[in-house]
Amino acid sequence: MQKSPLQIARASYQPKLPVALQGNVVLENGEATQSVADQEEIKALFPNTYGMPIIKMIKGEKKSFEPMNVGVILSGGQAPGGHNVISGLFDGLKNLNPQNKLYGFLGGPSGLIEHKYTELTAEVIDEYRNTGGFDIIGSGRTKLEETWQFDKGIEICKELGIKAIVIIGGDDSNTNACVLAEYYLQKNTGIQVIGCPKTIDGDLKNEQIETSFGFDTACKVFSELIGNIQRDANSAKKYWHFIRLMGRSASHIALECALQAQPNMCLISEEVEAKNMTLQDIVEQIVKVIVDRAEAGLNFGTILIPEGLIEFIPAMKKLISELNDTLAANEETFKALTTDDEKRQFVKACLTHDSCELFRSLPKGIARQLMLDRDPHGNVMVSQIETEKLLIEMVAKRLAILKAEGQYKGKFNALNHFFGYEGRCAIPSNFDADYCYSIGVTATWLIANGKTGYMSLVQNLTAPAADWIAGGVPITMMMNMEKRNGKMKPVIQKALVDLNGAPFKYLVAHREEWADANTSYIYPGPIQYYGPSEVCDQPTRTLRLEHNAL
Amino acid sequence: MQKSPLQIARASYQPKLPVALQGNVVLENGEATQSVADQEEIKALFPNTYGMPIIKMIKGEKKSFEPMNVGVILSGGQAPGGHNVISGLFDGLKNLNPQNKLYGFLGGPSGLIEHKYTELTAEVIDEYRNTGGFDIIGSGRTKLEETWQFDKGIEICKELGIKAIVIIGGDDSNTNACVLAEYYLQKNTGIQVIGCPKTIDGDLKNEQIETSFGFDTACKVFSELIGNIQRDANSAKKYWHFIRLMGRSASHIALECALQAQPNMCLISEEVEAKNMTLQDIVEQIVKVIVDRAEAGLNFGTILIPEGLIEFIPAMKKLISELNDTLAANEETFKALTTDDEKRQFVKACLTHDSCELFRSLPKGIARQLMLDRDPHGNVMVSQIETEKLLIEMVAKRLAILKAEGQYKGKFNALNHFFGYEGRCAIPSNFDADYCYSIGVTATWLIANGKTGYMSLVQNLTAPAADWIAGGVPITMMMNMEKRNGKMKPVIQKALVDLNGAPFKYLVAHREEWADANTSYIYPGPIQYYGPSEVCDQPTRTLRLEHNAL
Repeated sequence: MQKSPLQIARASYQPKLPVALQGNVVLENGEATQSVADQEEIKALFPNTYGMPIIKMIKGEKKSFEPMNVGVILSGGQAPGGHNVISGLFDGLKNLNPQNKLYGFLGGPSGLIEHKYTELTAEVIDEYRNTGGFDIIGSGRTKLEETWQFDKGIEICKELGIKAIVIIGGDDSNTNACVLAEYYLQKNTGIQVIGCPKTIDGDLKNEQIETSFGFDTACKVFSELIGNIQRDANSAKKYWHFIRLMGRSASHIALECALQAQPNMCLISEEVEAKNMTLQDIVEQIVKVIVDRAEAGLNFGTILIPEGLIEFIPAMKKLISELNDTLAANEETFKALTTDDEKRQFVKACLTHDSCELFRSLPKGIARQLMLDRDPHGNVMVSQIETEKLLIEMVAKRLAILKAEGQYKGKFNALNHFFGYEGRCAIPSNFDADYCYSIGVTATWLIANGKTGYMSLVQNLTAPAADWIAGGVPITMMMNMEKRNGKMKPVIQKALVDLNGAPFKYLVAHREEWADANTSYIYPGPIQYYGPSEVCDQPTRTLRLEHNAL
Repeated sequence: MQKSPLQIARASYQPKLPVALQGNVVLENGEATQSVADQEEIKALFPNTYGMPIIKMIKGEKKSFEPMNVGVILSGGQAPGGHNVISGLFDGLKNLNPQNKLYGFLGGPSGLIEHKYTELTAEVIDEYRNTGGFDIIGSGRTKLEETWQFDKGIEICKELGIKAIVIIGGDDSNTNACVLAEYYLQKNTGIQVIGCPKTIDGDLKNEQIETSFGFDTACKVFSELIGNIQRDANSAKKYWHFIRLMGRSASHIALECALQAQPNMCLISEEVEAKNMTLQDIVEQIVKVIVDRAEAGLNFGTILIPEGLIEFIPAMKKLISELNDTLAANEETFKALTTDDEKRQFVKACLTHDSCELFRSLPKGIARQLMLDRDPHGNVMVSQIETEKLLIEMVAKRLAILKAEGQYKGKFNALNHFFGYEGRCAIPSNFDADYCYSIGVTATWLIANGKTGYMSLVQNLTAPAADWIAGGVPITMMMNMEKRNGKMKPVIQKALVDLNGAPFKYLVAHREEWADANTSYIYPGPIQYYGPSEVCDQPTRTLRLEHNAL
């Protein structure tokens, strides 16, 4: 396999570890914990894993451990650093006892159920140190939720002598890890389950988990591109760039990129929802910035749009929900209609007045997407709606009216971008490389000490890596009850952008200035792995603002 | 102005210079030159600047120079390193005589004509060292072709005491620089004109110019993104990524990115034209790769598509030309038609049989773009045609047929990307930072020695910067006669991808292996400015292959 010079150079990078993890470790128990809400229900559902203490790792005496085997699973979308969690796990295990073995389940949680696995030897691990992607064992989106799946897991763990399973995933995967841990305790299988906090979306964070891994790298890649586009906009002075960014529901990625690059505008879905804004309100907000800049002779700029925006517009959410219901209830009738026009007429007749008006106001292409492009469950595929194009079209229409009225004298040429796949598998930044490796090593100490139902925890992340604090947090501590598919379920609370949090407040305090005539663009440039520490080791601005470390 | 840590760190980077430029320089004349073709015509058109010798710069004795003022112009699309040409020019001038002044004409060549300029002081220059973009003075696409424009230039040069104009641009801008140099000599104005080879497209190169600046950085940014997408494809194993890359007519960028990242497929427009391929041939070629990989269970991959592809498909070129003629000849009639269907019918009736068939076979959206979206001259805006989407649609259709016939059992999910604005204004790589700075310093020595009609020349670029060779090449040497807008004109020969050249041959020798089941992906990662030299100083693979320096 041919490699780039950077791939070769990065292979030998030794991730930095917290001092506490640099030798032998003992576990220190904190106070007993409670779930963030719905304590009684969560406790009843997790009688064996509820209320466990937070754990802190400190330097200890050398101790010997019996040989053990561990299985690891990558779950859900890729995030930079996944390979380093696994290499940290591997090195941690070999350090405990060279006879320890690490198995990787292939293609996500389904590998556990279908007994597809591979042994991760030193030779394999060395090929993947400090690399992006999840290709070492592949990932998958199968949900571990049914007891028959858990039982299939027991079979293979018995066969391979696996003492613990490490699940690297987002909020849902970690919720499932906890259910699995509880089940294995109830069944007295002796199999432990440890979770690791992964997602570029940044929505798996709370009092304990300061950030999920991958968020740092992905945001830095997107910010590099946004910065480059801004420099282009500021040089050519003729395009408005509408840039949509991956990140599912939460707007953390858009917000972090805004903090890094200072675009002229950044929409935050959570704010749109809180202010009960309509699509037209958003268009007016954008138009105002464009008109103001045009007054100053600046017919260019950048606007960041979070992927999940459309679902956070209350009226739009209602329309989508009505469309879902209408189409589900009238599947056969609808299918029998042949032309788009007939379908549109049919749908309109079923919508409430407000939704019908909104549907009518949408550009045809988008209306069609909402009506026709559906996932296997009949739901609109919201992430595939090109919101950036929708906004360009509506903004252009509005500007044309203002122009006719003499209220806008500028030129509006817009270009659209969508960034997601460009960053999900990037080579992890030093931060993510170090953080993930530490998460992996931490997981081995949790396992060696018989812990289950914990998430591997590394904190104090705005300090140098040596000062990071390693430990474990009971997954039940992060849970509450939420309605999913009509049923109340115990789940890890998803962290949306906190409108009272420091990162959003920073945006609010500066966005008028950034929108303004005098350009405030910052050009972050590409991730650096070498060079001055302030260039190559800084965590995200979100993290620094949240921890008062700017 | 707030800056990123990398911006701050790069501001103090001191670009590397060839040894010959590190002190005082004398110019050594080579043999008299000839134009690459049409010698008699070119000589007749450029009586004063034809046949001048190639110049080489060597270390010399210290000499004093009278104070002089110089003007600089950025022409055409942005390319990383433009600011370093200007900072090299500035430092070179101040080194010759601290009283020298550098003026920047604003917004491209129109700044010279309209007398819009600014003095570039040390304070201004220091803000832009080693940065991307052309925002220091802006760029523009006005063509310097008319004598009244040249005369306006004389006025402002007299006013500001400008001894020489440096034009930083692509092939057309350098052609115009030479016409201007010739005119100013004929008119005995004493104003010299020097060109600098800029374009990310890589099509300004020849026996003398080894590469245009910006190509290195832009290709590295695009390759970073392609590599990241490939790692994602190889992890998720469910998407085919169709990636269109900027680069105008020539396929140098796509080819270089293919050499850096080794995708499953890379189309080369020049090959398509040489083999007289049809759109359907291209579709079949792609389908073959997809079907073969599906046989091996691999329903994912990457395909690079050069921006100019569509114009290189002979049948498509003919269709576009017929459409241009038809619409030009029937403007009023066509405009009077109200529906798309009527327009389509009208157009079809005017096309030749083959073109009509092709037009009929195109997806509706593309047919519409060809028929309706036109530039102010009535021409199709080829670069805005989303060829990647066209190919996805046609490939999907063909695969559906093969599936129905039982010849394809895979799944085809495709995603599309277009990269251009992400790279044009990136922070220049060390190579481009050094190369551009050297070009700027070289230009000052050409000016100080009274040269005009020359392009600033830096060669031996695969060697360390210290061993680069600086000099000048008469622009007339690169010229031939070509038809432009129906008239024969003297122009610099544009370099398309040479199908007998080493870079293309390397692609041909390896592409079957890259298409194949075993992944050959390379992950270049982001441009590094620090670290081991093989990571942060390597020139493009195109350059190394062309100069046998791999």
